[in-house]
Amino acid sequence: MIFQNPVINQLIDSWLAEDIGRGDLSSAALPTSRVEALWVAKQDGTFCGGELVKLVFNRLDNSIKVNLLIKEGETFISNQILLEIEGPSKSLIAAERTALNIAMHLSGIATQTSLFVSELKGTGVKLADTRKTTPGLRILEKYAVRCGGGINHRLGLDDTAMLKENHLAWAMSMKEAVKETRKVAPWPSKIIIEAETSDQATEAVINGADGILLDEFEPLVLHELVPKLRELAASRSNSGGNGQIILEASGVDPKDLKTYADTGIDLISSSAPITRSHWVDFSMRFKEAN
Amino acid sequence: MIFQNPVINQLIDSWLAEDIGRGDLSSAALPTSRVEALWVAKQDGTFCGGELVKLVFNRLDNSIKVNLLIKEGETFISNQILLEIEGPSKSLIAAERTALNIAMHLSGIATQTSLFVSELKGTGVKLADTRKTTPGLRILEKYAVRCGGGINHRLGLDDTAMLKENHLAWAMSMKEAVKETRKVAPWPSKIIIEAETSDQATEAVINGADGILLDEFEPLVLHELVPKLRELAASRSNSGGNGQIILEASGVDPKDLKTYADTGIDLISSSAPITRSHWVDFSMRFKEAN
Amino acid sequence: MIFQNPVINQLIDSWLAEDIGRGDLSSAALPTSRVEALWVAKQDGTFCGGELVKLVFNRLDNSIKVNLLIKEGETFISNQILLEIEGPSKSLIAAERTALNIAMHLSGIATQTSLFVSELKGTGVKLADTRKTTPGLRILEKYAVRCGGGINHRLGLDDTAMLKENHLAWAMSMKEAVKETRKVAPWPSKIIIEAETSDQATEAVINGADGILLDEFEPLVLHELVPKLRELAASRSNSGGNGQIILEASGVDPKDLKTYADTGIDLISSSAPITRSHWVDFSMRFKEAN
Amino acid sequence: MIFQNPVINQLIDSWLAEDIGRGDLSSAALPTSRVEALWVAKQDGTFCGGELVKLVFNRLDNSIKVNLLIKEGETFISNQILLEIEGPSKSLIAAERTALNIAMHLSGIATQTSLFVSELKGTGVKLADTRKTTPGLRILEKYAVRCGGGINHRLGLDDTAMLKENHLAWAMSMKEAVKETRKVAPWPSKIIIEAETSDQATEAVINGADGILLDEFEPLVLHELVPKLRELAASRSNSGGNGQIILEASGVDPKDLKTYADTGIDLISSSAPITRSHWVDFSMRFKEAN
Amino acid sequence: MIFQNPVINQLIDSWLAEDIGRGDLSSAALPTSRVEALWVAKQDGTFCGGELVKLVFNRLDNSIKVNLLIKEGETFISNQILLEIEGPSKSLIAAERTALNIAMHLSGIATQTSLFVSELKGTGVKLADTRKTTPGLRILEKYAVRCGGGINHRLGLDDTAMLKENHLAWAMSMKEAVKETRKVAPWPSKIIIEAETSDQATEAVINGADGILLDEFEPLVLHELVPKLRELAASRSNSGGNGQIILEASGVDPKDLKTYADTGIDLISSSAPITRSHWVDFSMRFKEAN
Amino acid sequence: MIFQNPVINQLIDSWLAEDIGRGDLSSAALPTSRVEALWVAKQDGTFCGGELVKLVFNRLDNSIKVNLLIKEGETFISNQILLEIEGPSKSLIAAERTALNIAMHLSGIATQTSLFVSELKGTGVKLADTRKTTPGLRILEKYAVRCGGGINHRLGLDDTAMLKENHLAWAMSMKEAVKETRKVAPWPSKIIIEAETSDQATEAVINGADGILLDEFEPLVLHELVPKLRELAASRSNSGGNGQIILEASGVDPKDLKTYADTGIDLISSSAPITRSHWVDFSMRFKEAN
Repeated sequence: MIFQNPVINQLIDSWLAEDIGRGDLSSAALPTSRVEALWVAKQDGTFCGGELVKLVFNRLDNSIKVNLLIKEGETFISNQILLEIEGPSKSLIAAERTALNIAMHLSGIATQTSLFVSELKGTGVKLADTRKTTPGLRILEKYAVRCGGGINHRLGLDDTAMLKENHLAWAMSMKEAVKETRKVAPWPSKIIIEAETSDQATEAVINGADGILLDEFEPLVLHELVPKLRELAASRSNSGGNGQIILEASGVDPKDLKTYADTGIDLISSSAPITRSHWVDFSMRFKEAN
Repeated sequence: MIFQNPVINQLIDSWLAEDIGRGDLSSAALPTSRVEALWVAKQDGTFCGGELVKLVFNRLDNSIKVNLLIKEGETFISNQILLEIEGPSKSLIAAERTALNIAMHLSGIATQTSLFVSELKGTGVKLADTRKTTPGLRILEKYAVRCGGGINHRLGLDDTAMLKENHLAWAMSMKEAVKETRKVAPWPSKIIIEAETSDQATEAVINGADGILLDEFEPLVLHELVPKLRELAASRSNSGGNGQIILEASGVDPKDLKTYADTGIDLISSSAPITRSHWVDFSMRFKEAN
Repeated sequence: MIFQNPVINQLIDSWLAEDIGRGDLSSAALPTSRVEALWVAKQDGTFCGGELVKLVFNRLDNSIKVNLLIKEGETFISNQILLEIEGPSKSLIAAERTALNIAMHLSGIATQTSLFVSELKGTGVKLADTRKTTPGLRILEKYAVRCGGGINHRLGLDDTAMLKENHLAWAMSMKEAVKETRKVAPWPSKIIIEAETSDQATEAVINGADGILLDEFEPLVLHELVPKLRELAASRSNSGGNGQIILEASGVDPKDLKTYADTGIDLISSSAPITRSHWVDFSMRFKEAN
Repeated sequence: MIFQNPVINQLIDSWLAEDIGRGDLSSAALPTSRVEALWVAKQDGTFCGGELVKLVFNRLDNSIKVNLLIKEGETFISNQILLEIEGPSKSLIAAERTALNIAMHLSGIATQTSLFVSELKGTGVKLADTRKTTPGLRILEKYAVRCGGGINHRLGLDDTAMLKENHLAWAMSMKEAVKETRKVAPWPSKIIIEAETSDQATEAVINGADGILLDEFEPLVLHELVPKLRELAASRSNSGGNGQIILEASGVDPKDLKTYADTGIDLISSSAPITRSHWVDFSMRFKEAN
Repeated sequence: MIFQNPVINQLIDSWLAEDIGRGDLSSAALPTSRVEALWVAKQDGTFCGGELVKLVFNRLDNSIKVNLLIKEGETFISNQILLEIEGPSKSLIAAERTALNIAMHLSGIATQTSLFVSELKGTGVKLADTRKTTPGLRILEKYAVRCGGGINHRLGLDDTAMLKENHLAWAMSMKEAVKETRKVAPWPSKIIIEAETSDQATEAVINGADGILLDEFEPLVLHELVPKLRELAASRSNSGGNGQIILEASGVDPKDLKTYADTGIDLISSSAPITRSHWVDFSMRFKEAN
Repeated sequence: MIFQNPVINQLIDSWLAEDIGRGDLSSAALPTSRVEALWVAKQDGTFCGGELVKLVFNRLDNSIKVNLLIKEGETFISNQILLEIEGPSKSLIAAERTALNIAMHLSGIATQTSLFVSELKGTGVKLADTRKTTPGLRILEKYAVRCGGGINHRLGLDDTAMLKENHLAWAMSMKEAVKETRKVAPWPSKIIIEAETSDQATEAVINGADGILLDEFEPLVLHELVPKLRELAASRSNSGGNGQIILEASGVDPKDLKTYADTGIDLISSSAPITRSHWVDFSMRFKEAN
């Protein structure tokens, strides 16, 4: 359903246009007949992008039939057949690269996310993404993070107000910054404040933040700080404020995920599932006629 | 100059819209005054995207001044200041993430490319990219490959005709495929044929290919095959044909680049500079007022 | 700053194109010289849209100078001069209608909102808008509501999850609906549940809703229900949940705003500031040459 | 047929994108099954927008079936069922608000127009709209005026040349203005001149205007002026000119429509059907399974 | 002023994108310095498109200076210098072809139109264009016709209703067709009826047509028919109808223009100024440095 | 297949929007029933654009059926029926002009090309187009040239690097220009150099050009020059360079095509098939009901 959206159609059209340009020169080499092909995984991983693949092929030629053999978020192994495709040979070739590129990219993110998430297994702590996403692919990459078992942080600058280091450096005061933001933000929007020190984190709770991004804190510091912040937040409920505070660690080296999870925080946000992922390798192979 | 193109402006607008959405909620926290900031590298690497960064900031607010302190393709070290930026605080924050995302992504590709290219140093063999590029970013990622010292292969389906495994499986014959392609392709377009075996490579030369993609050949096989193919090609010039053949290896593990370079081929094409790159990490930091 | 957004530029271009079409036929009647004009209010009201007016004129012709004499959200009286404008006569005429139309429409919303908001003065209860906005003008109409003293509810389907009557009718259960939504929604997103009865409202608190839309409740019922729901929510904090609940009344006749405000709710959401507003009347008048 | 136009499709896509944004968060709460719903009127009025409603749902999901139970321009009463709709629950919810918003807005205009038109019944005088339309919705709002029994004035700046107060203030002379306009306007385009005084109206006829907009004239003045202008126009036919003149009153308070209709004018143009309309209220209700 | 329109900017961007594609490969051969060039006519003709040429260059690079040495609609002779241009060499080359193409095409139309118009000199009969225009260039080609001394017929399907042979074949009757059209067309829109026979022309006048397209009539027939139609139309004014009728001949061989002009018709419409025009030849030449 | 491309759909939508504008006013005159029509040639020629015609009608209304009776590149004679069409009368009329305009324009180019190509029959020399194409129609006009028997030169600035007179005037040297271009151009891209003199042509071969555009050379000069250039090019193969050179004449008067073809060149490039073509005339005629 995420893909049933006019914006996605326009995006796919722009991708196809990017590759096809003024027309596929190799098209003349191909017969006008319908042919069959398979997509084969060339390594292990976690799959993402099946519905998009369908859309890519069908935006070019809606007579193409794609039969998905794997579901979103499922793992696959090398040599596994992921999907079958049938249609005019010229259309299959013209859309092939675009479809493979997006699926390989998104499955790479799902695969990477899945590795990180497995380290948090049993801790109850979630792994969230960030706004470090490839320009043009925000909602798709965030979807891939979900396919890999992660959760999404805010989607853009307009759904949650995060006041970060630079905001606080340029604003009159944290208090003023929060107050002005509350005035114009839609009421359901949370305000999250980035803290670099324990004092800043405390100040953030006092000023009514809904969440705190604890950036590059040592685990030992967090062990002590987290309960204090929660207690302080609870006291806000007496004055009708939000007694709950969401505590989020960032700047965490992927190898330390488990250590941070044990500090009592709610979640870890990391750009690594996206910015440190590799594409997984898929290949489209013609199916021999019987 | 590559960026002086209406298409780039539209692309940047779509990136800004993707992040800003219905408006930056944190904007209210910021003063209307002009401020200064720096971009700092948080690791070593090869830079790419400076002109794009300027454009991203200026498409949002053309009063922003960006002063680049590093050139395209130059290396940087951790903590190096890459650029200075000055403008309205609200505008800097609204465009920050988009500008950083594209520069970190492209510089990641330039950095990765540079590593691979360094292994080919002195061999005279070039490293070329492929059409495995992130949808929406084809010309920018290919530009980043050049910043890292690589060269570009064809830009899309419309500038060079490549007849690959699937084409040949579905076409009547390689001969027929080449003939039909020549008929409709613009005359300056080269025809490249993908070969999986020595026989196919030989057949490709005979049929007049301008280049051959030698996919997953063993280095030893190439040592023998390459001179034979060149000799065969040279004989074509007697009949007015193209006596030159460009020989390109693909499916090469990055660690074997040097070994392949020594087989006499002209170039190695690889998706790894793009598909196996990580983002490099840059940070935008406020500049203390004096 | 809300208007410094490539999306706004595109929107304005589409409005200008809508009116100008294949070219302003009256343009030939006009001299090429620069002229001056004023915008005059023809009734009392609350102003909104000054920056947009500037943008409309400048997207057509960036040599036009607009001098705003009134700020966003300020009141004006009949015959008050709102702005001065100077530029080529042909450009002023070509953009006039588009600029007036948007400013008259938005100021109409600000004016209507202001009337409703004045009835809530001193109650501490806020007036929020809804998603009933004119297609194509969502962020602008919501901005106009803010200019009139109201606050914004969610901006779209993607920033807050609201489970309404139809959702609950089609979902397996409210519990299931909340659970599935939490799984895929970004973590900062609130979940709001629409309740038609006290039992539904209670169930919504138990299921962890962050807010409840109390639709078409009698004020007397709310007087009793509101404290119960707050108490119940507070008890959630023991299990680490959100102890705070935002209670919002809807389906309120504008004449009963004050009565509802006294029931202890946090806010009243209403489409009336937008759907029952009239345009206020402005006129652009040539300024006599001295 | 007015809606069978690629421009309409693009417009609808932009509306859907405006509401859905980065994806409907409530979608996860809904089953994948197909469901049924009804649209119910919550007040009396005149209907407009049925074909658009179909298009809105079908641009999102072309498997949705919409069965209209009322025709364009027909009246409905409170609680009347306007249409039935069947399709995947996620799609119905994602498009619901957009479809309702446009239909409620346009039906509000049709309803308001119908009220004004009824006052002109039997007079033979028509009620025409103006260019005061909500930016982005020109042709739809003008269509709604027709549904309500009104007629359309010019659609934009490019189909009819109207020389208004500002034109005449800035032009060398009315004569010159008409002459220059005739030179470049397509020959079938009419020239209409706005007159504020009887002298101006007379001058306009002499200069060959095809129509005159009599702005804010007293009814008594019109009673005398109208026949004089018609006589003067008739005399133009001797010199091969257009002997007919269309006389249009504007600046008429809606309550005086009948009085103005009796002055002998041809039509009254008014922005009120659009700028003073309210949305009518429709609701989409789930249909109980049998 | 016709070119001060967001639609024109978008059109020009699409043209530049069409030629530049993924980037001008020859750009690397050029210095980054600013250079000067001239446009020289390589044949005689009538000029059109100067403002567009400026826009094309400036949409690519707004630092380019274009100095027009000839006005719209002026004639030029072979070897005449038409304009001077100065700017970065890379930008001049990237926009050169697009700018030349549109100017050569439009000047070709102006030149052709001018030839036809000169045959009508002194007759008082105008030469009008038709809707046979190159897709995507309607308003520009119609502008070129005006530069050549012609006038414009309707600009599209939406500004004037023309009922042609096919309409009448499919409609119930001409009377019904006119009646239904009047109902929905904006009141200032004229209705023109295409007639193939004298009887049809007569019927058209009776049914209240504002203009008649007399298609492929013999001049002798027109000599007799024209005064009859005018007389019949004059009689309509008694019943308050339009006493004037515009009579337009079509299907006229360009060599017979004068003959037709003498039949008493008002204008001749012809697609030939556009569909039978050739491009005139301009060349951009570097200016030697002093 | 060239037309199975999202870019083509967008182009067609923009054409339809250009003609239909705010709605076809004549639509009301037409019945809602389905009707049949024919396209008839009104002169002899070579056909081009059948698939596009289908797309134009189906983008407006996908219930329209188009039955092509002639293939691309086939000749037709006056009065020949080219296609049958069936669908709702309102849709047929709304798309008619757009469909006819593109087919008449492209068939005009195919017809003109065919005439030129016939003069080269038997010579083995090909006729190629240039980048002088109508803005917005590049790939379609180049397709029409192929329908007429010509071949395509480069499609844009990005697929082949051509260094022309202005490049060489502004570059440091031809050698430097070639070197810099090779550095950034994709490796399969050819470099073509425009030569005005025999010395320049020789220099171009020495500098490694893949092709030479011999501009405005006398046939006698070419007779001598061509073999020398080929010999010189052959000698390049000793140093691993491209031994083949493609020699192309330009600036050839169409009447001299044969004379130039006899000089030993490979091809003649000319803008005349496009810039000197006329539209051929087609008419859409209703089909009488039986």
